[in-house]
Amino acid sequence: MSTRISVIGGGSITDGDGDVATAVGRELGRRGYTVVCGGRGGTMEAVCRGAKATGGTTIGILPGEDRSAANEYVDTAIATGLGHARNALVPLNGDAVIALAGSHGTLTEIGFAGIYDRPIVGLGTHDVPSVETVATPADAVDAVEDALDHRA
Amino acid sequence: MSTRISVIGGGSITDGDGDVATAVGRELGRRGYTVVCGGRGGTMEAVCRGAKATGGTTIGILPGEDRSAANEYVDTAIATGLGHARNALVPLNGDAVIALAGSHGTLTEIGFAGIYDRPIVGLGTHDVPSVETVATPADAVDAVEDALDHRA
Amino acid sequence: MSTRISVIGGGSITDGDGDVATAVGRELGRRGYTVVCGGRGGTMEAVCRGAKATGGTTIGILPGEDRSAANEYVDTAIATGLGHARNALVPLNGDAVIALAGSHGTLTEIGFAGIYDRPIVGLGTHDVPSVETVATPADAVDAVEDALDHRA
Amino acid sequence: MSTRISVIGGGSITDGDGDVATAVGRELGRRGYTVVCGGRGGTMEAVCRGAKATGGTTIGILPGEDRSAANEYVDTAIATGLGHARNALVPLNGDAVIALAGSHGTLTEIGFAGIYDRPIVGLGTHDVPSVETVATPADAVDAVEDALDHRA
Repeated sequence: MSTRISVIGGGSITDGDGDVATAVGRELGRRGYTVVCGGRGGTMEAVCRGAKATGGTTIGILPGEDRSAANEYVDTAIATGLGHARNALVPLNGDAVIALAGSHGTLTEIGFAGIYDRPIVGLGTHDVPSVETVATPADAVDAVEDALDHRA
Repeated sequence: MSTRISVIGGGSITDGDGDVATAVGRELGRRGYTVVCGGRGGTMEAVCRGAKATGGTTIGILPGEDRSAANEYVDTAIATGLGHARNALVPLNGDAVIALAGSHGTLTEIGFAGIYDRPIVGLGTHDVPSVETVATPADAVDAVEDALDHRA
Repeated sequence: MSTRISVIGGGSITDGDGDVATAVGRELGRRGYTVVCGGRGGTMEAVCRGAKATGGTTIGILPGEDRSAANEYVDTAIATGLGHARNALVPLNGDAVIALAGSHGTLTEIGFAGIYDRPIVGLGTHDVPSVETVATPADAVDAVEDALDHRA
Repeated sequence: MSTRISVIGGGSITDGDGDVATAVGRELGRRGYTVVCGGRGGTMEAVCRGAKATGGTTIGILPGEDRSAANEYVDTAIATGLGHARNALVPLNGDAVIALAGSHGTLTEIGFAGIYDRPIVGLGTHDVPSVETVATPADAVDAVEDALDHRA
């Protein structure tokens, strides 16, 4: 079972935030991780694009019933039909979580990451105590690696 | 349809936090609101106890499959069997949300309240921008009333 | 905790099927049961209308996010936002199930009733082994009473 | 996006039923389909074992929170934590469904396949009108191919 990193963040983001997400995806792909995300646009598309550019694998867990709604960089799309309750599944399916810029949905996913006891690294995201804040995409991936090593 | 206020907060809380939750419940019951909560112990039991003491009505939306797991102050228990994904349903089923002391689960519910565009009033809870912070149980109920009046 | 009977059946039904559902609801209300259903139109509205006509209580567990989508005979509406996955919650929240005419959704609910080990009485519904078939609305309520007595 | 076939059936099955499931999996793998299943034992393990033996790809959508509970022949395990409500996701994530021997859970999945308008082919499963009955594993795969061709 390959190690999976869930990347969470908003569906509507700035170009700058998209660049950060893509950089995170590139770094994850380069290091051989599978990216888990919500499968749609914004952060989700940007991180998957980055991961695919460096040979990574991507899983998108969608809120709707149509798996063809996944962005084009998703390798395995899972339709849930659960609406926003699917947010629980995104951190659950990663071994650790990287949280990027986002709004209410991202906050739910940070909370679920805490419930499921996943390490959470944040880059430009909500300032809550369960999140370890870092400064760059490479730092984010370093930090999740450290957290996973420490637990292993 | 009576107005419903969802009250969210931890399942394992201090006695002081329990007193706050009970006071919030008493105030909600006195003013005729229906309390929606997660149906179990801690904050959930304390707020329901308060609401019943002043003639209120309570709904508990449970994570498990057994509705008899609801605390004894729940009038209508709904079993979901969804585990933590049931957190989405607690704020969804209120017209506004009062957030009390809690941990990761409470954070998910604050996020879902934001997704579903519910006003959120906080009393000793997470410090996030979507929450309007107040100082006392009566202030909390005043603030949700103001928020609902303002929207009506 | 009052005894609850889940009534399942199609959302688009014939007038004759609606009359059967209303008669089942009247019988359940008369005997003091709480009716649990999917909260919307067709069978769900007809059974709730019947139950309210004889003083019963009704719970509607809705697929969507808007609890105001419940039919007017629902006392307590629970919005789930889960889409069709909410079908699991309808039999789960009753002590026994009466299955009326319906299609695929009703079949899922018969299956969940079996999973959750609820007695299932059928009147003009799918012909599957887990369903005890009866001939009239009064027979249906007699049969669920017998099944619940036998288990108690 | 490769074509996916959901295979549903009981978690506790006879050796003979397991042989059928494995034969279905082998046929699906040989013809290049991705198998979607519930990810656990019984039918789910048998069909995945067959699919992997002939070079197929497998997805397992699990009821619990631990993706390591997937059987060893699952390539991509998705944990849901939804309990039995996850049954909705198994047929939803296939383009067509093959139903094998099973009990209540299989019945819910046949119902969801109908809700989501998936062709359903049955081999030794529930006798309900939405299921097209066939006699052999190869016939089952032929029948889903015909159904998908007919729709395309």
